Amino acid sequence: MATQMTAARRGVATDEMKQVAKDEDVTLDWLIPKIAKGSIIIPSNNCRPQKIHNVGIGKGLKTKVNVNIGTSTLNVNLEEEIEKAKVAVKYHADTMMDLSDGGDVKHIRKTLLETAPITFGTVPIYEAYNYGVEVHKNPLNLTEDDYLNAFENNAKDGVDYTTIHCGITKDIAKRILKVQRYGGVVSKGGTITAAWMLKHDKENPYLTHYDYLVEMAKKYDVTFSLGDALRPGSILDSHDELQVQEMINISQLTKRAHEQDVQVMVEGPGHVPLNEVAANVRLAKSLIGDVPYYVLGPLVTDVASGHDHIASAIGAAVSASEGVDLLCYLTPSEHLALPNAEEVKAGLIAYRIAAHAGDLVKIRDKAIKWDMEMTEARRTLDWEKQLALSIDPEEAAKIHSRTGQHPGNNVPCTMCGGACVYMMLPQQKKYEKENENLQQIE
Amino acid sequence: MATQMTAARRGVATDEMKQVAKDEDVTLDWLIPKIAKGSIIIPSNNCRPQKIHNVGIGKGLKTKVNVNIGTSTLNVNLEEEIEKAKVAVKYHADTMMDLSDGGDVKHIRKTLLETAPITFGTVPIYEAYNYGVEVHKNPLNLTEDDYLNAFENNAKDGVDYTTIHCGITKDIAKRILKVQRYGGVVSKGGTITAAWMLKHDKENPYLTHYDYLVEMAKKYDVTFSLGDALRPGSILDSHDELQVQEMINISQLTKRAHEQDVQVMVEGPGHVPLNEVAANVRLAKSLIGDVPYYVLGPLVTDVASGHDHIASAIGAAVSASEGVDLLCYLTPSEHLALPNAEEVKAGLIAYRIAAHAGDLVKIRDKAIKWDMEMTEARRTLDWEKQLALSIDPEEAAKIHSRTGQHPGNNVPCTMCGGACVYMMLPQQKKYEKENENLQQIE
Repeated sequence: MATQMTAARRGVATDEMKQVAKDEDVTLDWLIPKIAKGSIIIPSNNCRPQKIHNVGIGKGLKTKVNVNIGTSTLNVNLEEEIEKAKVAVKYHADTMMDLSDGGDVKHIRKTLLETAPITFGTVPIYEAYNYGVEVHKNPLNLTEDDYLNAFENNAKDGVDYTTIHCGITKDIAKRILKVQRYGGVVSKGGTITAAWMLKHDKENPYLTHYDYLVEMAKKYDVTFSLGDALRPGSILDSHDELQVQEMINISQLTKRAHEQDVQVMVEGPGHVPLNEVAANVRLAKSLIGDVPYYVLGPLVTDVASGHDHIASAIGAAVSASEGVDLLCYLTPSEHLALPNAEEVKAGLIAYRIAAHAGDLVKIRDKAIKWDMEMTEARRTLDWEKQLALSIDPEEAAKIHSRTGQHPGNNVPCTMCGGACVYMMLPQQKKYEKENENLQQIE
Repeated sequence: MATQMTAARRGVATDEMKQVAKDEDVTLDWLIPKIAKGSIIIPSNNCRPQKIHNVGIGKGLKTKVNVNIGTSTLNVNLEEEIEKAKVAVKYHADTMMDLSDGGDVKHIRKTLLETAPITFGTVPIYEAYNYGVEVHKNPLNLTEDDYLNAFENNAKDGVDYTTIHCGITKDIAKRILKVQRYGGVVSKGGTITAAWMLKHDKENPYLTHYDYLVEMAKKYDVTFSLGDALRPGSILDSHDELQVQEMINISQLTKRAHEQDVQVMVEGPGHVPLNEVAANVRLAKSLIGDVPYYVLGPLVTDVASGHDHIASAIGAAVSASEGVDLLCYLTPSEHLALPNAEEVKAGLIAYRIAAHAGDLVKIRDKAIKWDMEMTEARRTLDWEKQLALSIDPEEAAKIHSRTGQHPGNNVPCTMCGGACVYMMLPQQKKYEKENENLQQIE
């Protein structure tokens, strides 16, 4: 079967393209050439058994939000993961990644794929790691075949995209020990691979066998997320030579995948101070071109433990406004523990705000309609509409219900009470919709 | 008694200046000229009966966070307000504003001044509004004397700074009715004043009697926060002619206050799309010079009801990084209801993150020390230190305790489990502190 990119290059409109065109209110004539050249991807494994809602990711489309769930060797509870997956779908995650590396990862993956009928990603090296722990009794005793099998297992299960850390080389792993890094290497996949390369004095299996991975990816239409193994884990390390070297490597690997019609996005940081966030996106885009760029936050400070969803939503909003296409959420429990379902929701909502704030810059004409409707509902004291339009209608209604006059259209809330600005200057309410624009009656 | 500005212009170091110099790790020689010219203020009413912890606000100092509490005509519960004030002090608010306009506002103010021994602000027109409701039975039947008495009452009670909406003129009020504004006028004080001017066909009392206010402010050393009556209440209205006209008016009024040694800060928006936040700060600073700039958020989208603390922390962080000196928090209940104590905390923590993210840009050399210590604690798996350094140690500890090995130094958390990056590449932990820098052992 062909990949979405193959189809696009042949000028064929797939069902997935039609869905994306409809969701994003664009024409197929606009969309298809962008998929053909790789500036838009539709991660969509062609053997995934579940019927899912596919999303497009890339330039000119809405910024998407990814939710990470999954076990670790210290916390395996499939029921909890299922609950998290349901919460993510309920609160409109665009994509989900299962990062499980503890327990029966294959069973967990299949269960979560069934639970969440949305675009689904994994990190195959986590399965390899798990195999190393369970079978070899040491994750560093993995063979190169174990690495490759893990990738193929994920592809065959129908995973739509996978993160592969193929930009970290043996040379970089050796430099890690000599270069001053305040935060060290914080990508799990990157660290496992670095430790493996140092132990075996061998090159990164995902780099050595990249052509094979490309072949597999083409077969199943698995989209690559070229992983950011050297992403800074402290704002002090932002844009150091390791991170930038890896980005250069990845830009070359992107071209090799594109030559075989394999869809690619590139992963970014991490921890980045606020004044470097825009520069990060611009540097990445200048190296990788318009290939979709996917970032974790970034966190704009290291001190916000317990509230890292907020610290990183700041970086995520700025990233999105500068051209990032997919945002990977962080939850309040980042750096502390695996998230629970409540924290999954908190992270997702924070990131949907960040994504929309970015879209108000990137694709303003489309994105502004939501704010326009909300403004009108607010000005006319239409509480029912205002609550329904909120990013989190449940939470908004819960708070507003404390006013005791819920939803109570045409009455003020307890915030301003009798001094409600829309009652004090009542003529402010007298606007009318006309030609889809809000016009004031003079 | 002289104002802090008078003292600074005479080269006299006050106790308040000494406190600020110590807190900010600056010399008096550096600080005093800046207070003299108005780029730094120390709001400090000279008849405030409580001994408080004063803060300095302005260029070169840490970004400060203000917490708003107070009643409305629809919600008067002094016990709740006391609880909010205590929460704000506990979680390190720099300043607090009592915005009460319901109930016995004078008693509430005095109680909150006693409860919170920190820099304290009010909006006198809210007392005037309350007087109008209670005594005149119509807030628009206020006299000019009522306006002025409210200001004087606040000054005599020891309020350190007050917001006065003196930049909104009768001409602007008339233009409000003709100019298309999607969100209308959303400043409560601005709306009351606009409605009053339109009803009486008179100029703004706080503008007509500005010299008298300056005289009172000089007598008590009340710092002016020149209010942003026309701040956009929708990102659609950002930087319209009304907002910018008011900013120009305020820049002129600032000079008149400075001539009389009265300290001033200027208030900003509001709702501003992300790509205009930096421009907002630059425009304001270009009009008002280096006078401290104080913003509400701004919110970068209108749709985040229930989570407006996050949507506005995004704007606040960018604002701070661009030069904003004081951030007024928003809580999750903004636009929906008066906040409760839990929401006061949520808003404050979000804003302390935003302020610090800004400081990492504005005063990096000082601000980075916190992140550096956190990074070291994280890298060395020193959980006790990591939790203590968190912006919200209680919440961080609560989450981490779920790992079942809390605090458990030198063990991984449930996020990465056995694949903990600092155990996988153990040499990453082998750093040492040297000359206050983190150096890696090669």
